[in-house]
Amino acid sequence: MSGGPTPISQCASIDDLSGIVGKHLIYAYDNGWKYELYVRNAETIEFRCLLGPMFGRWSKNQPAKMVRLTDGLYKLAWVEPTGTTTNVILWLPDRRVHTTISYPQWMLDYPESTLGRYEDNLDDIIADRDRGPTYPLTLVSSNGRITFLETRDPDDDTVIDRAPGKLPTGYADRTN
Amino acid sequence: MSGGPTPISQCASIDDLSGIVGKHLIYAYDNGWKYELYVRNAETIEFRCLLGPMFGRWSKNQPAKMVRLTDGLYKLAWVEPTGTTTNVILWLPDRRVHTTISYPQWMLDYPESTLGRYEDNLDDIIADRDRGPTYPLTLVSSNGRITFLETRDPDDDTVIDRAPGKLPTGYADRTN
Repeated sequence: MSGGPTPISQCASIDDLSGIVGKHLIYAYDNGWKYELYVRNAETIEFRCLLGPMFGRWSKNQPAKMVRLTDGLYKLAWVEPTGTTTNVILWLPDRRVHTTISYPQWMLDYPESTLGRYEDNLDDIIADRDRGPTYPLTLVSSNGRITFLETRDPDDDTVIDRAPGKLPTGYADRTN
Repeated sequence: MSGGPTPISQCASIDDLSGIVGKHLIYAYDNGWKYELYVRNAETIEFRCLLGPMFGRWSKNQPAKMVRLTDGLYKLAWVEPTGTTTNVILWLPDRRVHTTISYPQWMLDYPESTLGRYEDNLDDIIADRDRGPTYPLTLVSSNGRITFLETRDPDDDTVIDRAPGKLPTGYADRTN
């Protein structure tokens, strides 16, 4: 290691995901929409939409690529079966989130097939996706805050275990 | 401001782009491919592919969404006319880069129409894009290092002023 200014993030590797795997969080975008994310393992996330026009959407098996950017700061990227590309930045100590999502046009026009569990409705989603229109892709950028944050075991099927519509009253409003 | 631990990035705003606008850089991915980026202004980037199978691709007018993640750390996201969604993380003090790119299938199969200046070939690119196939979208994650970095004026048309094939010998090999 040579001298000079200390680099931002040399103390741990970009591939050190020990601080993100197992994290379970609820976050609210500035527009009020609420989402839930569980980092099931280093290659898989689970999510639910808890509040907003996309209420009801969820997945228990979304492959994702994750990196550690610096202490407490992570980026998760994934492509959904719909053709939507999502990049989420999580500042865990700050409890902040920033997301860019690239939406195919049909997802904005008629999202109905995507408002359940992706894995239960894959044929319909792919039929809608292939019918399109895909373009223009709309890049939406959103800021939000993490309203609930906990650490769970990896690969725990009890964290995200039911559809958003089956959750107890007040679930999305939990804070800590 | 309440007490408690100091958040990562409260000393400047996520929207403070003063440290990224005007930056001009060359970076090399771990596979050896080299790219060049000029942050023309807070809404626009310019780029060139200098080395690798995508050699020749360039743009002087690519809208992008940018945020400051923390000191010296920025994220730039954009959707190209091809339908490719790119997210680039730049660690300026560390001289590192991490990119995720969501590639439509046709871009991997027959990229020929995309290997010039996008703005000069938009009709052909959009025809190829609409012919597809778009799916599966392939999410490629890459790490690299910044080999050349300087600060230029914003909106300077002399930074990226010609096709990659018209650059002087050794241009891509400049380091500082």
